[in-house]
Amino acid sequence: MSSFENVTVLTKANVYFDGKVTSRTVQFADGTKKTLGILLPGEYEFGTDVKEIMEIQAGELNVLLPGSTEWITISGQGEFTVPANAKFKLEVKTVSDYICSYIAE
Amino acid sequence: MSSFENVTVLTKANVYFDGKVTSRTVQFADGTKKTLGILLPGEYEFGTDVKEIMEIQAGELNVLLPGSTEWITISGQGEFTVPANAKFKLEVKTVSDYICSYIAE
Repeated sequence: MSSFENVTVLTKANVYFDGKVTSRTVQFADGTKKTLGILLPGEYEFGTDVKEIMEIQAGELNVLLPGSTEWITISGQGEFTVPANAKFKLEVKTVSDYICSYIAE
Repeated sequence: MSSFENVTVLTKANVYFDGKVTSRTVQFADGTKKTLGILLPGEYEFGTDVKEIMEIQAGELNVLLPGSTEWITISGQGEFTVPANAKFKLEVKTVSDYICSYIAE
């Protein structure tokens, strides 16, 4: 089973949209950070501070990347990248499990 | 901020009740395990395999322990213990953030 080893996990959850989006923060020895999160069905808009790589481990959702007019569909597994200081939209169809990597540039 | 250090975190979420209850598994160097979880509002029954100590970090919920007829109310923070091989019920009123410790005996 896939895992992150020798990491620090913050005990308190990150909670957004009345708990329909929640995540846990994982800190790595090299100073980098990821969150492990759950998206429940719904429509959301998120903003980034730094570049984010979103890896969907399971779920069905549509993604509208910044500057795009065309929705990307992810079914099962997939990945997309959002630049820093940008907004993106999600239409989540089924409970989705993600890993978000924050990339300081 | 409270954290677990030098741990292993499984990347895949544990998902129950259509995603209304989700958690992440954290493994410690001594072989013990905890989960960090989120409870969305709803009514749930859970079963234990081993003894569980449930620490509510935030949330409002009622707990019915096995063999009890009286609900316990937790508002904000609280803790309860469930023996192995038992069932307990939760009435979750607001999004709740918990740490569950699994105690092998």
